[in-house]
Amino acid sequence: MNILIYNEFVHESQPGPAQDMYPRGIHMAISEGVSKIDPEALSFTYATLENHRDVITRDVLKQTHVLIWWGHMRHHLVDDEVVRMICEEVGAGMGLIVLHSGHESKVFRALMGTRCGVEWYEKGDPGRIWILDQTHPIVKGVENPIEIEAEETYAEPFTVPVPDELIGITWWKGGEIFRGMSVYHRGLGKIFYFHPGHETLPSYYNPAVIRVIDNAIHYVAPVQRVDEVTSHHIEPHEK
Amino acid sequence: MNILIYNEFVHESQPGPAQDMYPRGIHMAISEGVSKIDPEALSFTYATLENHRDVITRDVLKQTHVLIWWGHMRHHLVDDEVVRMICEEVGAGMGLIVLHSGHESKVFRALMGTRCGVEWYEKGDPGRIWILDQTHPIVKGVENPIEIEAEETYAEPFTVPVPDELIGITWWKGGEIFRGMSVYHRGLGKIFYFHPGHETLPSYYNPAVIRVIDNAIHYVAPVQRVDEVTSHHIEPHEK
Amino acid sequence: MNILIYNEFVHESQPGPAQDMYPRGIHMAISEGVSKIDPEALSFTYATLENHRDVITRDVLKQTHVLIWWGHMRHHLVDDEVVRMICEEVGAGMGLIVLHSGHESKVFRALMGTRCGVEWYEKGDPGRIWILDQTHPIVKGVENPIEIEAEETYAEPFTVPVPDELIGITWWKGGEIFRGMSVYHRGLGKIFYFHPGHETLPSYYNPAVIRVIDNAIHYVAPVQRVDEVTSHHIEPHEK
Amino acid sequence: MNILIYNEFVHESQPGPAQDMYPRGIHMAISEGVSKIDPEALSFTYATLENHRDVITRDVLKQTHVLIWWGHMRHHLVDDEVVRMICEEVGAGMGLIVLHSGHESKVFRALMGTRCGVEWYEKGDPGRIWILDQTHPIVKGVENPIEIEAEETYAEPFTVPVPDELIGITWWKGGEIFRGMSVYHRGLGKIFYFHPGHETLPSYYNPAVIRVIDNAIHYVAPVQRVDEVTSHHIEPHEK
Repeated sequence: MNILIYNEFVHESQPGPAQDMYPRGIHMAISEGVSKIDPEALSFTYATLENHRDVITRDVLKQTHVLIWWGHMRHHLVDDEVVRMICEEVGAGMGLIVLHSGHESKVFRALMGTRCGVEWYEKGDPGRIWILDQTHPIVKGVENPIEIEAEETYAEPFTVPVPDELIGITWWKGGEIFRGMSVYHRGLGKIFYFHPGHETLPSYYNPAVIRVIDNAIHYVAPVQRVDEVTSHHIEPHEK
Repeated sequence: MNILIYNEFVHESQPGPAQDMYPRGIHMAISEGVSKIDPEALSFTYATLENHRDVITRDVLKQTHVLIWWGHMRHHLVDDEVVRMICEEVGAGMGLIVLHSGHESKVFRALMGTRCGVEWYEKGDPGRIWILDQTHPIVKGVENPIEIEAEETYAEPFTVPVPDELIGITWWKGGEIFRGMSVYHRGLGKIFYFHPGHETLPSYYNPAVIRVIDNAIHYVAPVQRVDEVTSHHIEPHEK
Repeated sequence: MNILIYNEFVHESQPGPAQDMYPRGIHMAISEGVSKIDPEALSFTYATLENHRDVITRDVLKQTHVLIWWGHMRHHLVDDEVVRMICEEVGAGMGLIVLHSGHESKVFRALMGTRCGVEWYEKGDPGRIWILDQTHPIVKGVENPIEIEAEETYAEPFTVPVPDELIGITWWKGGEIFRGMSVYHRGLGKIFYFHPGHETLPSYYNPAVIRVIDNAIHYVAPVQRVDEVTSHHIEPHEK
Repeated sequence: MNILIYNEFVHESQPGPAQDMYPRGIHMAISEGVSKIDPEALSFTYATLENHRDVITRDVLKQTHVLIWWGHMRHHLVDDEVVRMICEEVGAGMGLIVLHSGHESKVFRALMGTRCGVEWYEKGDPGRIWILDQTHPIVKGVENPIEIEAEETYAEPFTVPVPDELIGITWWKGGEIFRGMSVYHRGLGKIFYFHPGHETLPSYYNPAVIRVIDNAIHYVAPVQRVDEVTSHHIEPHEK
């Protein structure tokens, strides 16, 4: 299975707390974590803000089963044509996992049809994700609730459409809640949004978080893949 | 209540079967029909492809309670900035009604996050809309099923997200079905898609169709209206 | 509009903290609260565990627009035939509001098709209800979030079906969340479940709670009412 | 995987068109069909109206992964205690497939919380099931649409709750449509309703119908199984 991880890679590429936390980048932390718990062959490709125009081509997307997206302060620098291709490929069946601040990425907003805004503050507070559907494949092998040691607090109102599958809701010590673990269907593609992952906090070393991401890779992977999802002139079925 | 109707107005502006059917344009047929059955004061403004850049301004949108959209072959000529403003105002609470071939408009596609393709043929076949939720405000006073004398057949697969409110399903003589009467929520705005309305066929003279559009105007009209729907830095609620 | 309130009325009918809190009974606290903020004519009838077999007759139910249900420790003593009639009338269009510990009532369980269990503890902790859909008629005029001074904590997993309309989620000081503000559709009837209302705590004096109940009365009131909702032999529509 | 098939077995147990169509009973037609296309080891047990009190015990249900239910004219003779146990086991994770006229069985109605009525006529008309979600595991390997040679027509209004997963909609030659291919979640259990299967018509020899039933067995099979789904006194998570 071909996994393409886009990581903006601005924070961790220079000295500072993000680099201290994820010295090889968030993309490597995710792929290393997932590879450890999933002995099956996942093949990873990486794109960053810097090289994304070259790496994320139509051909690469057509070969990609699941695209994982992490971005933060440079959403506006992502190429519109790349965004358009990604949305088309999701419609045609490619899986997509959007992490943390990717909620405001062009890709996620284009697929949701909304602003995808959140209320937020950064205090490194603990969070607790309560699983609403314990039979969902995405939470297989995961204890309920999922304890998050320290995170950026993302809170409602989260201006997204009503999720097709609302898997978990996060409780925050500060007094908020968040629908940060949901699946949306767009065309033949499935999109999983999952909120943990601030660049200076250790969520991608949390085994439950990584397990959820691994489960999600398998869940959003395409069942079928088509070439175009458009209008067709047809003949009546009854004659 | 301020209603803004966008009608592409290419077909009916020149001699031919569309002009024969709707001599004053589809926009006028809709506003005249709705005004007749709804004695309440609805105030109508009209935009066409030709003048939409001038008419559909931010100020006008902010004063608009419900925008009705009919377009067909010239979707690509609609201004991207106008589309962007409309999507923002829907998110901020403005109601939207998308009719017939508006399913492939830039506006609807941007709000759905999908291609919004349909299977279709044009035979003027009868259709029959079966109402699934007879208590929905949109079908108040409407007989179940709604008989459509002659229409362009729109059929599944319809590549839209799962509707938030699936109000009716259309049966076609030719052997197809269509989810052509649905509500979607985007931010604070409600969107109603309704499939009748081919430019050479008399659906906008059908009292049940007009009654549905009138009900929908009242249903998608804003409950509240905000200025922006974006992310906000907040303080923790518990201290 | 005819409102029928069922209150078990075991706790408050004898001296103790429940009677101290609601001296005239929970049913009177609700009707008095709602009457104060809704100047429209709501006509109230009351039933208790003791007299419910006599009061809740088929005739009374047929005249009832909305039934409000509060019960706690004596669910098992409610008459099965009364439960059956209520479920039929909900299917035929009657509105139903289930409050607090009514989640385990025979009526609610029969309509949900599940056990409707919750996790719970009684510490009088504060709760905070975050509104997910601020345009919903049930939260008209209500500040987001709704602050609950002191309540019995009800927490997930709440073994109900996925709500048709998930209006609010409650955050608890103790570390839990709860889907305690939801609408379910059953046949032509709408059911609103709302969790505040422990018998020794002041939630029914909270203006926001009462406002929500009043809004809900109007929201679940029947749009249409039928006599039976059963299978019918019909003729084909096409001949 | 242990599959328990309940077949009323009144029609086919006596000479006539039902016996001519399904000489060994509908239960055997289903198990033989499924066994042929699914080489994996499915182990079948059978219950009929006559012996269901003896066969469908708590112990058997606890060992059952998926219960398949076919009943028609004798729903009222099914034992209430058996129904209660089945509903509890569905809540605790057991899968359930309800076929054709099982829509009015005590089991299905108890789990739906509604009357589950349909409009119907028996003309042996062809039907065509349009698949709305082509990526759903239940339609793996199945062509869209599924052509049904001859069936009893079941039509809307179908008085069930809004399906959690609306997989297909049936078009009928006679002019009707039907939501006859849906999944409902109840507690930890999944329920699949599928409308083909009149006792005198050959739907259970239709490879696509059997393929759907086989896929559904795998889809509704329990992910986890618990002992009770009830309310629990807990301690606050934060201290």
